[in-house]
Parts: sequence; structure tokens; C-alpha cells
Amino acid sequence: MDIYLFAIFLLACCAAGATGAVFTPGAWYRSLQKPWFTPPNWVFRVVWTSIYLLISFAGARLAVIEGNAYAMAFWAAQAALSTLWTPLFFGLRRIKGALLAMGPLWLSVLGCTWSAFSLDFLAGLAFVPYLIWVTVAAALNIEILRLNRHVAPLTSVGG
Amino acid sequence: MDIYLFAIFLLACCAAGATGAVFTPGAWYRSLQKPWFTPPNWVFRVVWTSIYLLISFAGARLAVIEGNAYAMAFWAAQAALSTLWTPLFFGLRRIKGALLAMGPLWLSVLGCTWSAFSLDFLAGLAFVPYLIWVTVAAALNIEILRLNRHVAPLTSVGG
Repeated sequence: MDIYLFAIFLLACCAAGATGAVFTPGAWYRSLQKPWFTPPNWVFRVVWTSIYLLISFAGARLAVIEGNAYAMAFWAAQAALSTLWTPLFFGLRRIKGALLAMGPLWLSVLGCTWSAFSLDFLAGLAFVPYLIWVTVAAALNIEILRLNRHVAPLTSVGG
Repeated sequence: MDIYLFAIFLLACCAAGATGAVFTPGAWYRSLQKPWFTPPNWVFRVVWTSIYLLISFAGARLAVIEGNAYAMAFWAAQAALSTLWTPLFFGLRRIKGALLAMGPLWLSVLGCTWSAFSLDFLAGLAFVPYLIWVTVAAALNIEILRLNRHVAPLTSVGG
């Protein structure tokens, strides 16, 4: 594995991770009604860190394989959509808006997993935890929307 | 050019573009001291839309070329970093934090342009306006930081 490629993919993950560091779940998130399967807050950090390392590893392996077009396109899409989700949900408290981003994010991760498996078994495996996790995250987003219909988003930040 | 690949890269750009749609320059941005070369607000929309179309075109061309590893890694990195910048600047008003994201964003776009030119002249050309634009944006971010040292970021959104 090319360590420089790994580092560039990890840089993309750090951008996504940075949104989690600056838009944190505070009093507002605590006040929401949440479903029974909501993980405790510390789980998110551990899971996301593991996922970032795994998919950067997968990215570095896939990048050097011929025929990687869809794998690389989906990898880029999941990186941008994952960076978008957190500011929508925790920043603007747009539970529905975040769900609109979650749809294409879930499809992108499915696309990554599918195209990775068709090129390289290890890279495919490295995407499986991510696919499971975005499925949980999507279910969580849907349930939080259903249970908190009365909660209005912010019209602007810093209001 | 594979239109589905183009669409997936454009989806990544839409995630970046969505941050500009929800974290908008309002009274706070108007109140900042800005350098002489600050473009009027409408220019950002036009320029970003053009850049998104051009780099999605470049992405779709590069994705099917053998030896595209660095081009694809840098493409993903710029997508995530560009999605991060807007919530930092307009969302949390972290002028310095946004500049910290701008550094690796600028390097990623330089990496895209460089590696694209080494694979495909048209794809390389398609990155040139982006490289010029992030250079202007970086200069703008630096000057706004220098001219507004007294402006504090939000400690949290919706405060």
C-alpha cells in the first residue's frame, strides 16, 4: 500500500471528522427523543475513527487498481456527503435536511462496497463496517425525525 | 465520457455546494472588513457552479485512465475539504479555523491539477479555473483574518 495515497484519503476523512469535532452534540441533542438503539456518544468517536482508517486503507488499495472508476467516484461522493451531514444535523439542527443528505450518502457507501468487492476482496471487506454503520445512522436519523416532529431547525446559525 | 461517473462526481460537488446554500453570507459577513479584491456575492455562485461542472467532467475522464491513483485521491480530498470550509467560515464564523482547512484544500487542488495534467490535457485544463479560484479564496481568507482580528468566532451554533 502506498502510504502517501493512504495519507491523502485520510486527509479527506479528517475533513469529515473535523465537522464532528466542531459541531458537537450538546444540550439540543440531549433534549431530543431518541430510539432504543441510539449508541452512547463515545461510540461515535471510536466507530468513526476505525471507519476512517479502514476506508483510507481501502482507498489506497483501490486507487492503484485498473478499472477503479466507480470505486473512486463513490469514494469521493461519500467523503463529501459525510462532511455535509454533521453541519446540517448538529449545526443547523435540520433533521430532515440531514436525512436528505443521508440517502445519497448511504447509496455512495453501498456503491463503494459493491465496486470495491468487484476489484479487491480486502478493500471490499474494509467497507463493510461503514455500510453497517451508515445503515444504523440512517435508521437513527429517520427515527429521530419521527420522534421529534415538533422540533424546528435553526433558521440561521448564531441567531 | 461516462455520464454516470460524471453524475457521481457532480453529486460530491453538490454536497459541497449545499453548504453554500444553507450557510449563507448574511449580516455578519457584510459587517466584516474586506480587501479590495473581494468579489460581489453573486460571483461566488456563478464561479462555483462552473467549477463543479468542470471538475466533475475532469473526474469522469480521469477515473477511466490507468495510473489515476493520485488524481483520484486528491479529487476526494478537495471534495471533503471544500465541503468543510463553508460551515467553518459562515456557520461557526471561525475565520482562522477556515484558513486551516484552506491550506490543505489549496494543496489538494494543486495536486489535482498537477496529476490531471500528467494524465490528460483536457482534465488538467478543467482544473485551472479551480486552482485560480482557491488561490483567490485563500488570499481572501487571509486578508479577512488580518483585517478582523477583533471578531470572535461563535462558541456554538444557535447560541
